[in-house]
Amino acid sequence: MTALSLDLTATSVELTRVLCDIDSVSDNEGPLADAIEAAVQAVPHLTVTRVGDTVVARTELGRERRVVIAGHIDTVPINGNVPSREVEVEGEPHLWGRGTVDMKAGVAVQLKLAAELAEPIVDLTWIWYDHEEVGEELNGLRLLAAAHPELMQGDFAILGEPSNGHIEGGCNGTLRAEIRTRGVRAHSARSWVGHNAIHDAAEVLQVLQSYRPRTIDVEGLAFREGLNAVMISGGVATNVIPDECIVQVNYRFAPSRSLEEATAHVVDLFEGFEVRVVDAAPGARPGLDDALAREFIAAVGATPQPKYGWTDVARFSALGIPAVNFGPGDPSKAHADDESVPIAQIIATEESLRTWLSPA
Amino acid sequence: MTALSLDLTATSVELTRVLCDIDSVSDNEGPLADAIEAAVQAVPHLTVTRVGDTVVARTELGRERRVVIAGHIDTVPINGNVPSREVEVEGEPHLWGRGTVDMKAGVAVQLKLAAELAEPIVDLTWIWYDHEEVGEELNGLRLLAAAHPELMQGDFAILGEPSNGHIEGGCNGTLRAEIRTRGVRAHSARSWVGHNAIHDAAEVLQVLQSYRPRTIDVEGLAFREGLNAVMISGGVATNVIPDECIVQVNYRFAPSRSLEEATAHVVDLFEGFEVRVVDAAPGARPGLDDALAREFIAAVGATPQPKYGWTDVARFSALGIPAVNFGPGDPSKAHADDESVPIAQIIATEESLRTWLSPA
Repeated sequence: MTALSLDLTATSVELTRVLCDIDSVSDNEGPLADAIEAAVQAVPHLTVTRVGDTVVARTELGRERRVVIAGHIDTVPINGNVPSREVEVEGEPHLWGRGTVDMKAGVAVQLKLAAELAEPIVDLTWIWYDHEEVGEELNGLRLLAAAHPELMQGDFAILGEPSNGHIEGGCNGTLRAEIRTRGVRAHSARSWVGHNAIHDAAEVLQVLQSYRPRTIDVEGLAFREGLNAVMISGGVATNVIPDECIVQVNYRFAPSRSLEEATAHVVDLFEGFEVRVVDAAPGARPGLDDALAREFIAAVGATPQPKYGWTDVARFSALGIPAVNFGPGDPSKAHADDESVPIAQIIATEESLRTWLSPA
Repeated sequence: MTALSLDLTATSVELTRVLCDIDSVSDNEGPLADAIEAAVQAVPHLTVTRVGDTVVARTELGRERRVVIAGHIDTVPINGNVPSREVEVEGEPHLWGRGTVDMKAGVAVQLKLAAELAEPIVDLTWIWYDHEEVGEELNGLRLLAAAHPELMQGDFAILGEPSNGHIEGGCNGTLRAEIRTRGVRAHSARSWVGHNAIHDAAEVLQVLQSYRPRTIDVEGLAFREGLNAVMISGGVATNVIPDECIVQVNYRFAPSRSLEEATAHVVDLFEGFEVRVVDAAPGARPGLDDALAREFIAAVGATPQPKYGWTDVARFSALGIPAVNFGPGDPSKAHADDESVPIAQIIATEESLRTWLSPA
């Protein structure tokens, strides 16, 4: 068996193609993690730790501050979109294929700079992790934070999720809750004997329909919230008055709210109903007022945006580390079968990070 | 193979037990239909026709008027409640077991009187039919009406469905419709890009919640209507704004309304929404102003009640024949695992029919 070998002196564009052509669909990250581990082990200025299929590579230069830069190495399933190839999209050269956007271009940039930057202005912790695209319980970054929190430590973190090469600060939190009404079953020919739980859900839907979501400024970014029914179910049989109706709502809340505050808000809104939180994750503050962040923003040279979707930046935030999303590729193309990343964004991302991290 | 043999000179209570102990769960009515056919073939004053597993036995005495008396011979599945036995319920002797209520006690009374009444005051058509407890398309009375409408003809009809030994006149109609809302899918982290179809169902549920069903007098009986959601469904995934929600409503309407009027009422109520009728059956007028009915009521000696649930009486009504439900047993015990019929009701039902049908 020939181990895969990565040449970290190749261009980040060449490296993206090589990474995409190594199948690393969630649960099959092993071969790619092996290749990454071997490649960074060969870099003299990096200290490497392997935890499962997560690889951590650190400089230990005694700098005052440390920046963590992370990316996941798994992809959603391949659907005829490997091997990768160069294509033109609206006249612009792109790399096409599974993982080009989410997020092997970002990982390629990180790997190249990890090998190249022997004397960065801050100490660096590079993390390449597994199982981001599947259940929370398998997430490599979550497991690393639980088992080796010391390897996650730093003063600022960058997650290489696709953000069109812009800085997207923090992320909204997310909470799902079931709002339940209860009634009494009866034959629908004698409905007055029962009590209709679906009818009682009218008020729940009215609350949702009349709700005006807020937009909350957090450290200069406008986080737009949302409260929505995502599922509704009720009914026993077509001739029975239903004794239960469940509306599942999803609340996306600004990172200035704690999980407790978000929960209390939902409970308040649906006062008088049974409310059960089934899933929740706090948001992440953008941390853009941090000195390191300000220098990074200057290096990128564009106005930061809020991130609406929940990402693993929240894991850093939970450890008290300000964190942003920054990577090549349009997030709306993630998981699409025609996933493709503009080559210019790969190069620009690499250049911004290099500029910021290199001595003046 | 020994054919089952029925002794129609036994008491109706003994006959009920024999019928219950012959398995005739829907789709397995053959052996019982064979036994019934053989028993009534042996009665000199009856002309017998067999259609599938439906047996029709008629007197042809040249009377001015003809009464049709019908009962289904199938049951819902047995669940440890065969063989039948005598039990006491609240101090009253009962027959316990599958089919005692729905409706072998009624069939036993009919079989006994069919054999006994050689000189009734009217001509009689007895119908014992199959597949009442399953899909409409298999219903033996429906198939008889379609293939041999002449065998259904008469001036008045009695269906032996359990009615606690009281006359229950006619039945409400029933209509099911899907009320549908449509939206636009989006990721729930960016809900403002989409349009939530579940939220739009708020108005549908409000209409249902504020609806005040009417009670309509039809030929002296108060038919209570009902309009209810029986099913609701919507949602794509827990992080997606749903693009469709379907509320299924069941409208039970008085027999004075036609199917067209009932449909128009539902369409009017949900104006502005997509309404699709998925199932509908008209009600049946009680026909209690008929001379035969008045004599029958006098013989039973109790005030008639309306029937709320839809029953096969509506098939007679559709042919222009007034029809009532009249049989031993509490309808709320039908299909229950502890199904049991008061023995006194079997005897009283038999006696009322005999009194009415025999020459003074």
